Amino acid sequence: MEVNPIEAPAIEIFDSTLRDGMQGAGIAFSVDDKLKIARALDAMGIAYVEAGNPGSNPKDMEFFRRIQEQPLKNAKLCAFGSTRRKGIRAEEDANLASLIEAGTPAVSFFGKSWDLHVEKVLGATLEENLRMIEDTAAFLKSRGRYVIFDAEHFFDGYAANPEYALRTLKAAESGGADLLCLCDTNGGTYFADIQRIVETAAGSVSRPIGIHTHNDTGMAVAQAMAAVDGGAVHVQGTFIGFGERCGNCNLATIIGDLQLKRSFRCVPEDKLPRLTKTALRIADVSNVTLAASQPYVGSGAFAHKGGMHIDGVKKISESFEHVEPDSVGNRRRFLTSEVSGKATVLETIRLVDPEIEADDPVVRRAVEELKQREFEGYQYEAAEQSFELLIRRLLHRYRPFFRLEYYKVIGEFPLSAEGFPSTTVIKVHVGDESRIAGAEGVGPVHALDVALRRALEQFYPSLREMYLTDFKVRVLERSETTAARVRVLIESTDGETTWTTVGVSSDIMEAAMGALTDSIEYKLTKDMVAPPDAEPRKE
Amino acid sequence: MEVNPIEAPAIEIFDSTLRDGMQGAGIAFSVDDKLKIARALDAMGIAYVEAGNPGSNPKDMEFFRRIQEQPLKNAKLCAFGSTRRKGIRAEEDANLASLIEAGTPAVSFFGKSWDLHVEKVLGATLEENLRMIEDTAAFLKSRGRYVIFDAEHFFDGYAANPEYALRTLKAAESGGADLLCLCDTNGGTYFADIQRIVETAAGSVSRPIGIHTHNDTGMAVAQAMAAVDGGAVHVQGTFIGFGERCGNCNLATIIGDLQLKRSFRCVPEDKLPRLTKTALRIADVSNVTLAASQPYVGSGAFAHKGGMHIDGVKKISESFEHVEPDSVGNRRRFLTSEVSGKATVLETIRLVDPEIEADDPVVRRAVEELKQREFEGYQYEAAEQSFELLIRRLLHRYRPFFRLEYYKVIGEFPLSAEGFPSTTVIKVHVGDESRIAGAEGVGPVHALDVALRRALEQFYPSLREMYLTDFKVRVLERSETTAARVRVLIESTDGETTWTTVGVSSDIMEAAMGALTDSIEYKLTKDMVAPPDAEPRKE
Repeated sequence: MEVNPIEAPAIEIFDSTLRDGMQGAGIAFSVDDKLKIARALDAMGIAYVEAGNPGSNPKDMEFFRRIQEQPLKNAKLCAFGSTRRKGIRAEEDANLASLIEAGTPAVSFFGKSWDLHVEKVLGATLEENLRMIEDTAAFLKSRGRYVIFDAEHFFDGYAANPEYALRTLKAAESGGADLLCLCDTNGGTYFADIQRIVETAAGSVSRPIGIHTHNDTGMAVAQAMAAVDGGAVHVQGTFIGFGERCGNCNLATIIGDLQLKRSFRCVPEDKLPRLTKTALRIADVSNVTLAASQPYVGSGAFAHKGGMHIDGVKKISESFEHVEPDSVGNRRRFLTSEVSGKATVLETIRLVDPEIEADDPVVRRAVEELKQREFEGYQYEAAEQSFELLIRRLLHRYRPFFRLEYYKVIGEFPLSAEGFPSTTVIKVHVGDESRIAGAEGVGPVHALDVALRRALEQFYPSLREMYLTDFKVRVLERSETTAARVRVLIESTDGETTWTTVGVSSDIMEAAMGALTDSIEYKLTKDMVAPPDAEPRKE
Repeated sequence: MEVNPIEAPAIEIFDSTLRDGMQGAGIAFSVDDKLKIARALDAMGIAYVEAGNPGSNPKDMEFFRRIQEQPLKNAKLCAFGSTRRKGIRAEEDANLASLIEAGTPAVSFFGKSWDLHVEKVLGATLEENLRMIEDTAAFLKSRGRYVIFDAEHFFDGYAANPEYALRTLKAAESGGADLLCLCDTNGGTYFADIQRIVETAAGSVSRPIGIHTHNDTGMAVAQAMAAVDGGAVHVQGTFIGFGERCGNCNLATIIGDLQLKRSFRCVPEDKLPRLTKTALRIADVSNVTLAASQPYVGSGAFAHKGGMHIDGVKKISESFEHVEPDSVGNRRRFLTSEVSGKATVLETIRLVDPEIEADDPVVRRAVEELKQREFEGYQYEAAEQSFELLIRRLLHRYRPFFRLEYYKVIGEFPLSAEGFPSTTVIKVHVGDESRIAGAEGVGPVHALDVALRRALEQFYPSLREMYLTDFKVRVLERSETTAARVRVLIESTDGETTWTTVGVSSDIMEAAMGALTDSIEYKLTKDMVAPPDAEPRKE
């Protein structure tokens, strides 16, 4: 299907990372995390952000209160709930009241479309369930909301009793629901069946149809694509695929598929290059690693390893790339090619010295150093400033600002009196002078961090402007367990810029010290502080 | 489409983990690894195992030699290569000679089906390329092989020049190829187009059609399913989805989809429950963690977290499960988290005491304790055994096997002589006795681990059977940076069972000590070792 971009039909994207995504194993968000993710989705141009279930989770109500202090720019916020309870009026239902209290422009509520579930799980009659759906839609509509009905188990329900499943949609429609979203709650419906059933549903009601799929057959994206072929105009999912069991429809993938491959409009054209950045941001806030193999946004999505493929890509990029990496803000990577390795390294070298040519022997030395370091467990993709320092050292454009003579760390259990469990003493040299500083901390790394800054701030007062904003530890060789090497990544800021540095060792203290040292050295390099063999500044 | 299982049509499964899977970032196999994976696939009932490219990789030739010492039982081995080079006869081509030398019953070779690639990348005329394909098939056939032609870029080629793409298939057919496999090399073709093109191809030649897809649009499985709908009878992929860029068609997923959901026969019926075990085995040999969200085989594929979903599954299992977990050798899990509620907690309580009823006050106390602990940063989803110990403590069904009096850890830089950077001394009490043990380690956690076991093995010799298999560190409050709390997860085994325990503290040593202590306590509980106030066993 070729569609002229000017006439490209629009598909509404509805993100549920903050609600259905929370059902994923290992996913937990603080209110701050939720605010950050909502803003990232807003900046991406996502139409709807479903952000929580205020009736069942008090933390979600706090989110809805706090986001009103600085509302989203484009995305419509949506609160999620269920039909009124049976036997009471919608006006008496506390959960519906809290849905309204959330103060969002849109509200989604789910109701049952599978007769089996109505009778066996809900314990209601089929007619009672229809009234619950209709009443709930009418109540929410009367409060001025844009109302989305999530038809739970719609496809299994349709297979069991098509007439009843369609009646649940009609009940929501009579109540005034604005959009009817068909959910493949168990994730098991074949995409061809989804397309057929969506076509039937779309022909039976006069409201627009949405689709909500799960990845239990590894086809959540294809199921949603098939639904769009069947007439759905609204796609629900989670931005990087979080969700119960095998996850929800991955929105970063389907946005790429719909907009780049099939010419639908999901997000404003100029937002599409934010796709990779948004996925990384959400992964980061969620404290998970984005899978390298994620379509469009993974670090491997445009990575080429085989020599033959690299050759092909260099000759004709469409050889092994179905879209341009730039179009989604990603980039091409050559995993093992020395030639390509050179290109990346040369880029950093020219940051330090723009005059250096590609055939300068230092380029080859830097590539070799990089390979050796990566072999040892360093990873510079996420620690560009450590890599820049490495290049500076190779180019002899660098003299260290200090030298560590020693540190000693003592950890103790139980604590003596009200002390901290770790104490440390450290000795550093700056030029001809030296300083010894002591510190205590909640753990060995904390104690080292405090002591090192305490010793150096006397020489370099600008270090007081900087502080650490992130600290990550990753165990590298699982088979070595507690003797494994660890990689420590540290993110620092001075309010103006942010930089990331890395350290690797089987001793977590040494790894942390490596990353801390690079962070401080980078700050001083950046500030162009006088080198250490000049007279050190004093207070 | 409903098919009677007795007449279920067969789909050949062709695994390329050892060949195309090797193109994935971070995937590298030794010859031993390859032998292990080939045997796992054989035991699974996979029809074809494509195991390497003997012409381009000498290590692959060693594999083919060694596997002949103990041949596979059911699977047919396949060696992979390309068409003869242009300008020489097939008999003169060294790569083709090594394909034959590999001694496999099947051989696959790829040739170009996209006119652009023939002219721009290969630098051959269109007619020359057809002769290369035909000659190669004829040569391999004359050596008695089952010959598979992989039509590279077939779908992009068909889009550009359908007539020429089909002529490449006919060339392979004239040469005598037994099966024609259509490759979506760039992974970008829409599944509806794949189905249509496969139908056309199947109608144009008299040989069976295969399909080879990549996951660049997140739809590799759906693309292959659509090809089967179009008439393909052979599906290529990699068992857990390894492959260049976004990976290949995931065979564990498509086997489940084809056999359980659509009644095709891919593997013998009695092999299907090996699906999860085979996926875990391949992940293990490859040194990667199987994604929890992998359909059918991931640890999360049948995991339920939301209280409402858990309630639903307990009432009717098909509520939130599209197939039975047992059918693929997986199991249902209720994730222990604050959203999961009483039902999950009660299940663990009943492991310890089957008599306890849902309304026993201890259930509420346990739920509250769980919430409090999760608030502090514990996560029991991945540490079921720590949770079981917590329940035992609440039920007073537990006396600790030892008591830690103190530890002291000293970390030093630089190292004195050839020493380790960390040294520790620890004192434990068991019953009326105490032991002091010292140890050194590559880091503070390692030193503590060694010292603790050293002290306790004297009392509990069965601890010698256990060892740690995994060690993970996660920083919990990134805003606190080096003062943040960390969560340590430790996985242990004694060769019979495997268990996971957790510790949380802002001091990494204390967090690790918590997880180590739980691990040891769990092992002793499991073994029903005499409690510590009995006379401790001695050597």
